[in-house]
Amino acid sequence: MKEIEDIQLREDMTVKELTKQMSDSGFQAQNLGIAIEIIQEMIKEDAAIFLSFTSNMAASGLRGIIISMIKSKKIAAIVTSSGSIDEDIIRAKMPYLQGSFDADDVKLGNEGINRMGNIFVPNDRYQYLEEFSSTVLEETYTQKKSLTPSELLSIVGKKIEGESFIKAAAENNVPVYCPGITDGAFGMQLSFFKKKHKDFEIDVLSDFNNVISHAMMYNKNGGIILGGGIAKHHTIISNLMNGGFDYAVYVHSSSPYRGSLSSATTQEAKSWGKVKESAKAVTIHGDAAIIFPLLVSSINEFCKANNQSKSKNLK
Amino acid sequence: MKEIEDIQLREDMTVKELTKQMSDSGFQAQNLGIAIEIIQEMIKEDAAIFLSFTSNMAASGLRGIIISMIKSKKIAAIVTSSGSIDEDIIRAKMPYLQGSFDADDVKLGNEGINRMGNIFVPNDRYQYLEEFSSTVLEETYTQKKSLTPSELLSIVGKKIEGESFIKAAAENNVPVYCPGITDGAFGMQLSFFKKKHKDFEIDVLSDFNNVISHAMMYNKNGGIILGGGIAKHHTIISNLMNGGFDYAVYVHSSSPYRGSLSSATTQEAKSWGKVKESAKAVTIHGDAAIIFPLLVSSINEFCKANNQSKSKNLK
Amino acid sequence: MKEIEDIQLREDMTVKELTKQMSDSGFQAQNLGIAIEIIQEMIKEDAAIFLSFTSNMAASGLRGIIISMIKSKKIAAIVTSSGSIDEDIIRAKMPYLQGSFDADDVKLGNEGINRMGNIFVPNDRYQYLEEFSSTVLEETYTQKKSLTPSELLSIVGKKIEGESFIKAAAENNVPVYCPGITDGAFGMQLSFFKKKHKDFEIDVLSDFNNVISHAMMYNKNGGIILGGGIAKHHTIISNLMNGGFDYAVYVHSSSPYRGSLSSATTQEAKSWGKVKESAKAVTIHGDAAIIFPLLVSSINEFCKANNQSKSKNLK
Amino acid sequence: MKEIEDIQLREDMTVKELTKQMSDSGFQAQNLGIAIEIIQEMIKEDAAIFLSFTSNMAASGLRGIIISMIKSKKIAAIVTSSGSIDEDIIRAKMPYLQGSFDADDVKLGNEGINRMGNIFVPNDRYQYLEEFSSTVLEETYTQKKSLTPSELLSIVGKKIEGESFIKAAAENNVPVYCPGITDGAFGMQLSFFKKKHKDFEIDVLSDFNNVISHAMMYNKNGGIILGGGIAKHHTIISNLMNGGFDYAVYVHSSSPYRGSLSSATTQEAKSWGKVKESAKAVTIHGDAAIIFPLLVSSINEFCKANNQSKSKNLK
Repeated sequence: MKEIEDIQLREDMTVKELTKQMSDSGFQAQNLGIAIEIIQEMIKEDAAIFLSFTSNMAASGLRGIIISMIKSKKIAAIVTSSGSIDEDIIRAKMPYLQGSFDADDVKLGNEGINRMGNIFVPNDRYQYLEEFSSTVLEETYTQKKSLTPSELLSIVGKKIEGESFIKAAAENNVPVYCPGITDGAFGMQLSFFKKKHKDFEIDVLSDFNNVISHAMMYNKNGGIILGGGIAKHHTIISNLMNGGFDYAVYVHSSSPYRGSLSSATTQEAKSWGKVKESAKAVTIHGDAAIIFPLLVSSINEFCKANNQSKSKNLK
Repeated sequence: MKEIEDIQLREDMTVKELTKQMSDSGFQAQNLGIAIEIIQEMIKEDAAIFLSFTSNMAASGLRGIIISMIKSKKIAAIVTSSGSIDEDIIRAKMPYLQGSFDADDVKLGNEGINRMGNIFVPNDRYQYLEEFSSTVLEETYTQKKSLTPSELLSIVGKKIEGESFIKAAAENNVPVYCPGITDGAFGMQLSFFKKKHKDFEIDVLSDFNNVISHAMMYNKNGGIILGGGIAKHHTIISNLMNGGFDYAVYVHSSSPYRGSLSSATTQEAKSWGKVKESAKAVTIHGDAAIIFPLLVSSINEFCKANNQSKSKNLK
Repeated sequence: MKEIEDIQLREDMTVKELTKQMSDSGFQAQNLGIAIEIIQEMIKEDAAIFLSFTSNMAASGLRGIIISMIKSKKIAAIVTSSGSIDEDIIRAKMPYLQGSFDADDVKLGNEGINRMGNIFVPNDRYQYLEEFSSTVLEETYTQKKSLTPSELLSIVGKKIEGESFIKAAAENNVPVYCPGITDGAFGMQLSFFKKKHKDFEIDVLSDFNNVISHAMMYNKNGGIILGGGIAKHHTIISNLMNGGFDYAVYVHSSSPYRGSLSSATTQEAKSWGKVKESAKAVTIHGDAAIIFPLLVSSINEFCKANNQSKSKNLK
Repeated sequence: MKEIEDIQLREDMTVKELTKQMSDSGFQAQNLGIAIEIIQEMIKEDAAIFLSFTSNMAASGLRGIIISMIKSKKIAAIVTSSGSIDEDIIRAKMPYLQGSFDADDVKLGNEGINRMGNIFVPNDRYQYLEEFSSTVLEETYTQKKSLTPSELLSIVGKKIEGESFIKAAAENNVPVYCPGITDGAFGMQLSFFKKKHKDFEIDVLSDFNNVISHAMMYNKNGGIILGGGIAKHHTIISNLMNGGFDYAVYVHSSSPYRGSLSSATTQEAKSWGKVKESAKAVTIHGDAAIIFPLLVSSINEFCKANNQSKSKNLK
């Protein structure tokens, strides 16, 4: 068995040096080290990486990391919740603001500011989202009346100006799966559009078939799953028909003792075949806002755009 | 200010007596007491109650409580995640089993048992679900080819034998909204059915319009929201156009310091207008598996079927 | 394997009926049921029960339950943190107040109110504690100059008027062990007293020997451990020389993935021999403020004073 | 208000660059950035830094960081729980091992291995601790029969060979306060020693007076408090007479909604005057195993030994 080593700091050390040392420490620092090794192996083995995250992450600085991972051509698919679409479209145009967890919510409400933890979102952001969505949907509708969520997001992505993960995904042919697409402000615009155009349809059924087929294209699949909710479950269930993940890294802070899928570990996943019995897998119990940047910035392959994808993994 | 009182136990005390005393204690016991008062007022004021829960709750004994609340005619709408449909259909026919959090997951997997915390689900349960779904979908399709999730669940509910919340909801005209309906084993059957029948459609867009319209029918709305995920967010966003909830009780165990909607409190909701500034609202930070039975069994109105609904709340 | 049963509510059901049903549910409700069975067996087997809790519990309504358990003569020893002494002495005389988690702390501070979650403690409570402590210490010092914490608390307990767990323990010959006794407002008074009386001594070393000897007196020992900190660890380490607990119920809400003893489970304890390999043991992951009243009020033996202690457990 | 910025990764970036970017992100990444600024100001203003941590941290790689901070001469005092003494003495001589959270605890117990999360501690480590303690206590006793915990640890520290935070503290005249010193394996040796030498005394009362006096020596005080328990509370209460901290950074993962001091925030502390109304203070809700290395390695002043202490802060 390896020994626990004391972390030795030095001035201006790199993230990679620090996380390497963390891997010889205990508790979640050790798990972080294990996760980095697993992701490194995903890349080395050219596994198809399914990246899943919740909308709060798209509202935070993590969005920049997601964009960078997509541009590095190491991501096979994105699975996310509907709120991520809202945050991404808005932030490509208008910034969110730094706030405080202890703010007075009634006062904020009266000032037209919506609080998301310590991130503040003024109401005008949602007005912009409505206008953007309305224009894009009118344009799209003239070309096609029934679209799957991933198909729609591929079209929307190409219409976004500014930095955006939906745009980066569209430009790099990375599908963005969003099974619960109605459940957000963009989703509300979709539903309102349907009122006016009865033959407009979002085909969620075909997209589930699409993501399952997509997951079956590769010899080896890996999941990087941040947070829980429908994004996490959908990533996992989409890879179930394929025999489960060959590699899996979960990062979440909720307690597995509640029995929810959101908090379930990679260990529990093995009973279901969601993660292969032989898979390399780890759960980091912690906050993706801090842990995900450490993970990704420890892996050079994710930090540069236009990394050559080897594709040898295709069946 | 009221004083903190020591809890005085006596033999064979009722739940109601105990939770009344808890309301004069501190921490989450105090919040439990506040929640009971708020729900009592929801009932007294005949507010339309939107009940939201995640699928793990449908897998546990809480399902019995949900059924009982629907039968008492005090619930206006259910909003849940797709997994709840799986658990409900299966458990109406075949039981889930008591297991252990510390079980060996690889061994369980080899024995054909899936672990959900300390609940065990043998594989044959999912075989039954596939058969049931397949039969029901064939029957439904002959009558109608495009359905919203709530419309489909109303039809499915009437075909379920045994105790079921979907059935109870269908029989009592309580819509079950499920915006992420594809994301589960039942959802997978829907998608497979679509492969065979190209004109089969699940219309998620219209159901969002339906739930928004539904929420606008009443003078006063209350939310009882257990856990997070798409079920929680959808309940809230559906009541946003209505000016936000007049009453809200959240029960969840995740930390608001992550900035996710799943863990957001009723306080944060006030900045968004999701919960009215003047609303009576409380968040119980804890485990619905224990807290929800205490809440509901402290309120006699939920414990009896065929309670007369007053409907005076309709606009 | 037992089946998961839906909870069936009825009007005015007793706590015992409800928790019996919870034991056939899932997640922490199931663990609650297991805990009740274990504690019932502790009582049936006349195991010596070591009860451990943190000071926030003494500040809340749980104090009444602790007092009732002591009076039922089913408790062999109490192990707690220093803050519990403060809360108990004060609350025997002056009440704590119901507050709010969302209060403005700077404003409260200016009004002379200290916040403990949603419990408010006005400054005058601590003035009373200083006066009481000062008087009691002067009286005690004239009789004895070196005391162990449990010896001191036995003397202090007899001087408290009003309801108090320290008093109930003193009157029922239940030692209150408090290894970190200086770390609180009462502890500060002890230290200030030492400044004036150089020969005054609190002998923490002998009390550790006392609690170890105490734990070795019985054939079977059980631990009921609420929360973490020094109280939890001391209860466990005191029973280590005895071969570990025969029965153990832990209730806490912190995550075992941090590696702290405060959050360690009964399972982890078996590697250390803190809990016997063959022991009946369970960890309830949740909030003692709600769970402990359910546990205790489900067990009639704890609800009545002057229950006959059988003592057949003494070696 | 500042804007939320997307994190921009680049290859081989330094920790300092990354945490700088995190400070413009959301949620706990933002709080991490605030904490770094506060600690930088503590150093710039030459505030006396009280560093508090729990024993699991001394068992992990964090011990190396603590040692480095002490050697940089920026720490005025250490406050910790008794277990830290055990971990430090042992690890100076014999390593702890990397294990797994999912290990079989009964099997581990039979193999003589104790599990602390994912750190494994073989039994022979405790045998060494007993021998070391016994020798050191015999030597110490010949010189002095009554010692405060900090006095004893200063003597013990000088007898430790190998890397040790107690030794580094002793050599740099940083007192290690440990109010619950009996509550551990070293503490047990102290108590056993007392059995043989009735006049041996650990004077916890005087050490509380010492730490209070110590805290009053400076114009400005800052607290860096990792985890909870007696270490956290004692650090805070020791600085209460001084008017509360001028700067405070708390890092912990437990929920403030339980009302425990372990999980209380810097905000709640302001109602008590534990943290000054005007203080710069932040709580990072997360895992010190990962967060503390990020904090400290972002601050060059902590990374080098023999940093000149300015001491201008002394009153």
